Amino acid sequence: MSSQILNSINHQKIEHTPIWLMRQAGRYLPEYREIRAKAGSFLNLCKNPELATVVTLQPLKRFDLDAAILFSDILVIPEAMGMELNFVENEGPKFSNKIMTEQDIDNLDLNDMLAKLEYVFAAIKNCKGELNSTPLIGFSGSPFTLACYMIEGGSSKDYVNAKRWLYNNPELSHKLLNKLSDAIIQYLIKQIESGVDIVMLFDSWGGVLSDAAYLEFSLPYLEKILKNIPQVNHLGSKLPRIVFTKGGGLWLNKISAIGADVIGLDWNINIGEARTIVPANIALQGNLDPVLLAIGDRNALKKEVTRILGSYRAANGFNNTGHVFNLGHGVLQITNPDNVAYLVDLVHELSRA
Amino acid sequence: MSSQILNSINHQKIEHTPIWLMRQAGRYLPEYREIRAKAGSFLNLCKNPELATVVTLQPLKRFDLDAAILFSDILVIPEAMGMELNFVENEGPKFSNKIMTEQDIDNLDLNDMLAKLEYVFAAIKNCKGELNSTPLIGFSGSPFTLACYMIEGGSSKDYVNAKRWLYNNPELSHKLLNKLSDAIIQYLIKQIESGVDIVMLFDSWGGVLSDAAYLEFSLPYLEKILKNIPQVNHLGSKLPRIVFTKGGGLWLNKISAIGADVIGLDWNINIGEARTIVPANIALQGNLDPVLLAIGDRNALKKEVTRILGSYRAANGFNNTGHVFNLGHGVLQITNPDNVAYLVDLVHELSRA
Repeated sequence: MSSQILNSINHQKIEHTPIWLMRQAGRYLPEYREIRAKAGSFLNLCKNPELATVVTLQPLKRFDLDAAILFSDILVIPEAMGMELNFVENEGPKFSNKIMTEQDIDNLDLNDMLAKLEYVFAAIKNCKGELNSTPLIGFSGSPFTLACYMIEGGSSKDYVNAKRWLYNNPELSHKLLNKLSDAIIQYLIKQIESGVDIVMLFDSWGGVLSDAAYLEFSLPYLEKILKNIPQVNHLGSKLPRIVFTKGGGLWLNKISAIGADVIGLDWNINIGEARTIVPANIALQGNLDPVLLAIGDRNALKKEVTRILGSYRAANGFNNTGHVFNLGHGVLQITNPDNVAYLVDLVHELSRA
Repeated sequence: MSSQILNSINHQKIEHTPIWLMRQAGRYLPEYREIRAKAGSFLNLCKNPELATVVTLQPLKRFDLDAAILFSDILVIPEAMGMELNFVENEGPKFSNKIMTEQDIDNLDLNDMLAKLEYVFAAIKNCKGELNSTPLIGFSGSPFTLACYMIEGGSSKDYVNAKRWLYNNPELSHKLLNKLSDAIIQYLIKQIESGVDIVMLFDSWGGVLSDAAYLEFSLPYLEKILKNIPQVNHLGSKLPRIVFTKGGGLWLNKISAIGADVIGLDWNINIGEARTIVPANIALQGNLDPVLLAIGDRNALKKEVTRILGSYRAANGFNNTGHVFNLGHGVLQITNPDNVAYLVDLVHELSRA
């Protein structure tokens, strides 16, 4: 398989800077909302391989994207380990039984997990059957990010409960994070066997930690996962691994040392400066502000895309390779799909010039 | 006036690392809640110089803090310019008339502003009369942070409305930010004339911006303010100016160039690394995670305080001077005051050793 995104990650010659968008399959698309309504609930949609395949492919039908990302959710792992998960409209995910004691950690069941997640692997095989040469990205949440949701029971403002665990019970926290890492390794190995071409680790909440806490409770587990999943796909080709810590711009030199092939950037950091910090053999992914995509007029979008592409190029010997264009976080629900179409074509056009 | 905090900021010999805490006067203190109830509303409390003085001094009665910070709110400026402000219980500040058009900017009234803010200057004079040698910190929100609240009408998750202004209407945004800068300059000059010993600019939301947007819409206005307020107090002594952009760890080298005497750090950055980035003549303030203060046991608190003090010292030639201990953001409401007492004494004790 040869593609613009794999070539760019492998620092080979590209025709244009490849682009895909975090949460490119989602609520901003009317055709997604239709399927979501049909499925009855968000979790039903994740668990239905046929419908999950349809929504995975929807954005690729509309936009000239360079990769697909499997439609799923990071919380299917704790759900498959026995936690009861609900997605409450406008409130996000909720676990009715949060992790509060060591017994709760011991109760997390790894034995049945992969069998329960069979719907994910079935969706991957379906997608691969439909995608031809477009790479499919598989993913998982990071151990720390999953632990946050499992301890808080849902989203959180200050992560008081999760941090109470880390600060006051570091040994138990490590026990939970190790168990989650083992689960994620099994899950990603099976995703790779099922056919994904790239894997990505979403450390969505790593950026809420202090420097010391990030280096103790998040980064080592990202490294553990990278060390224990294959570096080649089921056909024996190189399989790139993307690591994204939102709010992790200060730790790029440390993230560079754990074995990632691509580092995801949020919009806080100047991508040209990131290019000078991250070793040249590691590609960069990012980093448009998702709010700009949602509400920006074309003039504003063009100005910022030009700046990002130019900043990368200038720091990379006037060469676009090694860059995967993306947002700095997921597509917002309020985004007009016409803006997405404009962005995708714009990135291709400006980077070809 | 000589004090540990002024000595530390001026890189002179200190007996211990000085400490004060953002939002040290506030809802975590039962004696504050009593006065707040008496005042009827948060805004009434801000507008009553006698009661504002009482709550400013409350934490100094309990804890061995090295500075007082005037009890007030950053939103008194837009309120004094004619915007209708309410603090809704558990929802935070709300403006009933948000900034939506150029006419709304033109309607902001600078002429009566200082007269309306007389209660602030009266509270400063009261506090100074009570404080003896403990320095009093005056403050303002940054132009960008005030603009966020004024455009959003309150707090926000993604700052969609504020960013719509910045991205799609940069000229009008600059008009608003310039007008706010002028207001802040007048306000801080009057605070200084009234007797504050230190001033601090809170750029609480600068960290939600992209690198390019921060450099265009926040940093230049912080610089404009620093260039236009006195560098000496009403008695002719040096008056330090603290700049704090929450989430601004990636921009320390740029913040260092605008004329601040102290740079505030949130808890994301390693303070020792910050010390190597920021020129030696600029002091650093920070940077304990406020959640740790709220929920940490003594063992966890001691471990992290030891780490922060040690990290600073090691990067500063094994010398504590130039460091002002603080949190990386305000004291959380759920904080146990006993933890604050423990922290203040711990910082003093460990830094004396």
